[in-house]
Amino acid sequence: MELRTRIMGIKLDEPRAVINREDADKLGLIAGDRVKINYRGSSLTAPVSISNFAEKGSIVIFLDLAERLEVKDGDFVDITRSDSQLSVELIRRKMAGAKLSKREIEEIVSDIHSGSLSNVELTAFILSLEFRGMDLEEIEYLTKAMAEIGTMLDFGGGNVVDKHSMGGVPGNSKDALIIVPIVASAGLLMPKTSTRAIMSPSGTVDTMEVLAPVDLKAEEIVEITRRVGGVITWAHAANISPVDSMLIERVEYPLRIDPEPLVYASILSKKYAAGIKKLIVDIPVGEEAKVEDMRDARRIAKNMVELAERLGITAEAAISYGGQPVGRCIGPALEAREALEILSSKGKGSGSIVEKSLSIAGMLLEIGGVSAKGKGYQMALSILESGKAYEKFREIVEAQGGDPNIRPEDVELGEHNEIISSRSAGYVTRVSNKAISMIARAAGAPMDKKAGVKLYAKRGDRVEVGDPIMEIFSSSSARLSEAIKLAQSLDPVKVEGMILEIHGRGPVQI
Amino acid sequence: MELRTRIMGIKLDEPRAVINREDADKLGLIAGDRVKINYRGSSLTAPVSISNFAEKGSIVIFLDLAERLEVKDGDFVDITRSDSQLSVELIRRKMAGAKLSKREIEEIVSDIHSGSLSNVELTAFILSLEFRGMDLEEIEYLTKAMAEIGTMLDFGGGNVVDKHSMGGVPGNSKDALIIVPIVASAGLLMPKTSTRAIMSPSGTVDTMEVLAPVDLKAEEIVEITRRVGGVITWAHAANISPVDSMLIERVEYPLRIDPEPLVYASILSKKYAAGIKKLIVDIPVGEEAKVEDMRDARRIAKNMVELAERLGITAEAAISYGGQPVGRCIGPALEAREALEILSSKGKGSGSIVEKSLSIAGMLLEIGGVSAKGKGYQMALSILESGKAYEKFREIVEAQGGDPNIRPEDVELGEHNEIISSRSAGYVTRVSNKAISMIARAAGAPMDKKAGVKLYAKRGDRVEVGDPIMEIFSSSSARLSEAIKLAQSLDPVKVEGMILEIHGRGPVQI
Repeated sequence: MELRTRIMGIKLDEPRAVINREDADKLGLIAGDRVKINYRGSSLTAPVSISNFAEKGSIVIFLDLAERLEVKDGDFVDITRSDSQLSVELIRRKMAGAKLSKREIEEIVSDIHSGSLSNVELTAFILSLEFRGMDLEEIEYLTKAMAEIGTMLDFGGGNVVDKHSMGGVPGNSKDALIIVPIVASAGLLMPKTSTRAIMSPSGTVDTMEVLAPVDLKAEEIVEITRRVGGVITWAHAANISPVDSMLIERVEYPLRIDPEPLVYASILSKKYAAGIKKLIVDIPVGEEAKVEDMRDARRIAKNMVELAERLGITAEAAISYGGQPVGRCIGPALEAREALEILSSKGKGSGSIVEKSLSIAGMLLEIGGVSAKGKGYQMALSILESGKAYEKFREIVEAQGGDPNIRPEDVELGEHNEIISSRSAGYVTRVSNKAISMIARAAGAPMDKKAGVKLYAKRGDRVEVGDPIMEIFSSSSARLSEAIKLAQSLDPVKVEGMILEIHGRGPVQI
Repeated sequence: MELRTRIMGIKLDEPRAVINREDADKLGLIAGDRVKINYRGSSLTAPVSISNFAEKGSIVIFLDLAERLEVKDGDFVDITRSDSQLSVELIRRKMAGAKLSKREIEEIVSDIHSGSLSNVELTAFILSLEFRGMDLEEIEYLTKAMAEIGTMLDFGGGNVVDKHSMGGVPGNSKDALIIVPIVASAGLLMPKTSTRAIMSPSGTVDTMEVLAPVDLKAEEIVEITRRVGGVITWAHAANISPVDSMLIERVEYPLRIDPEPLVYASILSKKYAAGIKKLIVDIPVGEEAKVEDMRDARRIAKNMVELAERLGITAEAAISYGGQPVGRCIGPALEAREALEILSSKGKGSGSIVEKSLSIAGMLLEIGGVSAKGKGYQMALSILESGKAYEKFREIVEAQGGDPNIRPEDVELGEHNEIISSRSAGYVTRVSNKAISMIARAAGAPMDKKAGVKLYAKRGDRVEVGDPIMEIFSSSSARLSEAIKLAQSLDPVKVEGMILEIHGRGPVQI
């Protein structure tokens, strides 16, 4: 049946079509059925609502669905009743614990990509991965299906390397801004493509976007990488592993979950699609990091290396210290500023972030074959200290369309800010990853780029009463107040005397 | 901030608010945040979309949310930014396997009831019950919270009994139409409240609605039950356990799942809220029934009785035969017609449904104290054969606003119908619950009341080639074709010679 589209200018983030009761009766449709909407060779299915809000002869759809079909308000589309959706039946089987075949996984990925699954169905799929898991074979098929449904980059046999961090530690989004220019300076190609932050206050893309556009098209990524050696861009904009962003935005971000099979598929589908041949995976481990236990870290490292191999990628996994935030700045603008300071000062700045960046850059130089084994760190350090990394970074920023002359102090921070001071004297015994993340997010990060937390005290530092321990920034005074409230209640930075407990003195005096 | 509402006339089945970017900035809102919408003492929270589809100073909401707040298009509502939603954090904890407290479960139920949870969040809750489960204490709290947030009926100490079937066997929705009038004839009160079918081709409410309105208000249920002894109504219309319907419509029905903790909470919250004091729970067991295994049935029976006791309800659970459809008719109109035939003929009709109805009616008469132990079945049979049950059913139909003079043949069936004939001669060895359900649903049941399947052959019946084995009815020729196709491919009624295999004759001849 031909129906005229009426497009509501709102993105619904899930498929929905509304048709008139009379048209529904003609099509034999009842509430809860799906319709297949066909337009110029494209099609998708959507659950149908029957309402006289849709006039006879018309179909009401929402903006995202219209964009996907490239249909304009008033255009005619062809509507048929859709039989039961195979992918939904497959999701039900996964919920029941079945192992899915290659073809079945491709069917689900294809329906997610076409926008045919409702949020209820998509959530059921992701939670079935959380609770039922997938074996390595299923994850391999999922990874390939996610990559191959989008754009596959081709660098024509170049020495293409990349690194990816599992994340979960605040302040960790900026190391790529230091690593990419070091590695590119040494002649390797490093097209770093990432997604935005899911649970953390900033992802690499959020941080880089403070300094330059990150929505590069696929051709631009290939061209710039070949010309200057590297980019730091948003996978979604280049249609790299497009389903990954959809899962994150629609389900993983709202629920703050990250099922293990999807952790692998998310990271490796992007790397596989981006044409990466050699990969370092960074797995931070520590209290309140995403991975808290060394045994888990080793299992994840092993799986990651094996899965990468199934995709033809040579990978190494580095388990790193993740027991407190990396560096002193958390939040997109703050982290961009910190990276820029380190680069422009040729290596001065917070020891933890400089050290970590050089270690991973060194591993990349070694796996990429431009440094001898065991000499990568030293080579990375020379490149940073020589100022070549800073020059390379400016080239990358310029190539992506940013201002290469921006100085750290030019990076704008939230106009509303407040310093939190220590209420006791002693040594910092703990900086809570979770609390710092929550405070930075309450202040507005990562959506509010200027929001975040600057730490003035980290583990082992001596502080006196009244010394500043952190500063919170936000673009909104309302959000700043909320972040301050959290900072006061969560005890994010623990200050204690060096003597924590005394035993053997008889009964404890209270 | 005061914003003028603009109401879209579509039910979205989840909360959503759209506001202008400028207003969002003033409120410190970023995408993914929630707003609290306050109107005349009511409030709910909704995830916010930021789009210039909403004009400055306005907020776009959808019909269901507007109805819930009782707000009209153009009314001003007060908007504040909502801090993180406690119930969402609790759902996350349940996903991680935590046991929830009474207060925490009440918080979740309250947010579901106010319509504050998105479909992603609601699906996460229901799947966490599927995968993590709940202990009996949690289920007790969930049941009470679901009941107490709605209307609680009070019959002032009357002898109030009810029965509930776990379902899963097609054709099982009509026994209440026979049981309620028998039990009411014996002087007990039986206010039967149910939900619509989730997975089956018809629920008791869908079937009763063919003969009389089922959307009785709470006062009407109490009044009619006191006057004529019983009703058969839709819990949702009387605001009995309102959250139950929401969970079914939004998640359980689309995904066809029914987590065990919710099976208990769904049944018992309705009984607790309806003021039931004595309850018989029917658990059909058999191939392709909801419960396939006797061990599961016994566990469910034990849990059901114990949970009922925690709610002050004396319960017995009957494990019944569920290996094939009950009676010969499946689908709302067909089942209504079959029940009416049995009542009006004083007990003639398909043996399985008469037998089952009398057994359960007998248990109710015994547990209700109007029959001696072991004499209930005989008493129920006398009431049916005397014609008193039929008279009582006519009273109930009339009290609910239906036509008491309707004859079985007056019940309209789908105008499109087709007889499926046997392709072989022999005995019926199997009638598949699942296939019959799928065929009836493909034909349009339960939404299309006139759709369904009439069985002409059941287990043990002798059929010849060309004998009718079933007839399919539908209001839509398109749906009928689909149902016929299913009937041809699924082999729903298996016909074999009485000799299934012969051994000992030497090699099998093919």
